[in-house]
Amino acid sequence: MSPTELDLTLDGPALTAALVDFPSVSGEEKPLADAIERTLSALPHLTVDRHGNNIVARTRLGRAERVVLAGHIDTVPIADNVPSRLDGNGVLWGCGTSDMKSGVAVQLRIAATVPEPNRDLTFVFYDNEEVAAHRNGLGHVAEAHPDWLAGDFAVLLEPSDGEVEGGCQGTLRVLLRTTGERAHSARSWMGSNAIHAAAPILARLAAYEPRRPVIDGLEYREGLNAVKIEGGVAGNVIPDACTVVVNFRYAPDRSADEALAHVQEAFADCGVDEFVVDDHSGGALPGLGHPAAAAFMKAVGGSARPKFGWTDVSRFSALGVPAVNYGPGDALYAHKRDEHVAVEKITHCENRLREWLTS
Amino acid sequence: MSPTELDLTLDGPALTAALVDFPSVSGEEKPLADAIERTLSALPHLTVDRHGNNIVARTRLGRAERVVLAGHIDTVPIADNVPSRLDGNGVLWGCGTSDMKSGVAVQLRIAATVPEPNRDLTFVFYDNEEVAAHRNGLGHVAEAHPDWLAGDFAVLLEPSDGEVEGGCQGTLRVLLRTTGERAHSARSWMGSNAIHAAAPILARLAAYEPRRPVIDGLEYREGLNAVKIEGGVAGNVIPDACTVVVNFRYAPDRSADEALAHVQEAFADCGVDEFVVDDHSGGALPGLGHPAAAAFMKAVGGSARPKFGWTDVSRFSALGVPAVNYGPGDALYAHKRDEHVAVEKITHCENRLREWLTS
Repeated sequence: MSPTELDLTLDGPALTAALVDFPSVSGEEKPLADAIERTLSALPHLTVDRHGNNIVARTRLGRAERVVLAGHIDTVPIADNVPSRLDGNGVLWGCGTSDMKSGVAVQLRIAATVPEPNRDLTFVFYDNEEVAAHRNGLGHVAEAHPDWLAGDFAVLLEPSDGEVEGGCQGTLRVLLRTTGERAHSARSWMGSNAIHAAAPILARLAAYEPRRPVIDGLEYREGLNAVKIEGGVAGNVIPDACTVVVNFRYAPDRSADEALAHVQEAFADCGVDEFVVDDHSGGALPGLGHPAAAAFMKAVGGSARPKFGWTDVSRFSALGVPAVNYGPGDALYAHKRDEHVAVEKITHCENRLREWLTS
Repeated sequence: MSPTELDLTLDGPALTAALVDFPSVSGEEKPLADAIERTLSALPHLTVDRHGNNIVARTRLGRAERVVLAGHIDTVPIADNVPSRLDGNGVLWGCGTSDMKSGVAVQLRIAATVPEPNRDLTFVFYDNEEVAAHRNGLGHVAEAHPDWLAGDFAVLLEPSDGEVEGGCQGTLRVLLRTTGERAHSARSWMGSNAIHAAAPILARLAAYEPRRPVIDGLEYREGLNAVKIEGGVAGNVIPDACTVVVNFRYAPDRSADEALAHVQEAFADCGVDEFVVDDHSGGALPGLGHPAAAAFMKAVGGSARPKFGWTDVSRFSALGVPAVNYGPGDALYAHKRDEHVAVEKITHCENRLREWLTS
């Protein structure tokens, strides 16, 4: 029998196991969203709203600050790793243990056990994070009900191995096209070789020196890389087109516009015939200077690390809400068949958040 | 009703039209090969041999010299351009008019009308020239019965617009592979970019200065070109492999071994991790110094041109038989929907060959 209800009296590790055993691959989150909605609606201190399969639950205590705890409820496809399995070393195995049902369990545990937090709380549970950006439930809520996401600071419980990861880098993908003229390769002087025309682009990429800026005490590392190249018509034809796909990962002290200008300038004299922006998501500053963030850092301990990959903290940043990643899972094992989480990390994370929200 | 017989009393242009109307796309040459075999076997001055769908007919007059007239009987696929159509300007349109049923018509006309040539004659009609090299019928005959192709000089009636094209260039295709190490593009310093590693290869190609050597009075033009490039794993992954496919077209004063050594040396310091020879066909010297060739040049008139594309003259060259291209079609229109030939070129070509072989 599939589970349909959640028991919030379970401890964090047991609740994580129950969530893993309640499959919710991207696109199939409705049963779990239903269960979360029912469970949270039963808690008198929370007001629950729903948009699609996205659930937002809020306290309305009139506190001076409001913080958001957010997590996605979908997982990548199951890979023979459900149901979950707890081994003798305190490690819980299964799809979503790391990314990010352990984080969702912590959200639910805080919702259930902290009825009178020192800051107003907003819990966000959203769908379709593991698939194309346009399907992302947090993006849908941000568009339809931005007020539901308002707050002074947000914690995304994405796997960060129990360490705070501040902000996130931006990512820009552009297509650099060179053109030429086709000819039979036996009469190559009749044409113009578009692959040869890409030589200055590759030379520029190979010589590029990425920055390592320090922001709010965190060292970010940029990167400008070809992720794809293609050109060619046939084995005996001088090619008339070549495309280099370049991905620029940039630190959040550059705005999206500045990042684009930087890449345009980098290839300005490389003979690019067409410059196309394929995909662009801005970064997010760590925002660790905010009082709520400072109190959070003090409560959770340790030192923050920069986040290199793009995450949904950027969506909060775009709404004016500084955000960090802080969750029990280890991103190294996300999306893997041997995905797992150390149960003590779940408990640790839950306790640190509770301390921050009650002290 | 499809034609099944050939009438060698037709003049060259009419016989060309009959051949175009007798479809023989590569792989489907058997009916035409059967018809050629039957027709030539009826001529008492010829001995006819067959290997697959390849027909070889020879005089055995004990002349001091033997010359070979060769042509392929297959065409590229028909493109709404059969049956043939003769317009009011003396131009015959249709699949194979240029490449090379007009040449085959000239061969058949010479076979039928020159029973006592001044040099012994070998007529070769072969299949599958328009497809992969390993299927080429001339290659099969050369392997199984090299004696059938013996001679002092060979004329391939490939389209050359009624001009002599001497020898042919060689063609070498190599794969140059660079390797790297995959990593998430947000953490590019953890990997090594194989596309960036190809930068020196493209730089070398872009800077390459091809030779223009003069051989037997003909100026050849070499070329070293990328014909394909590919690399990339996904939009957020540092690629661990990149392949540049390079085609070297070289003049026939280089042997195949020398050409390969030249390309290896050209990329020796470019960080190539793997160098693979994908395809290699040597060139053919024009051989215009041979007495039979000199007499041929005198009879056909005009001046020889170098042949840049690789052709089957190279197969004769490998058998020790100097060879040239000389046919009525225009290679510019080969393989095209609007393929055509000027009928006066067919007659001119036939008359020039007859003069050479009877004077």
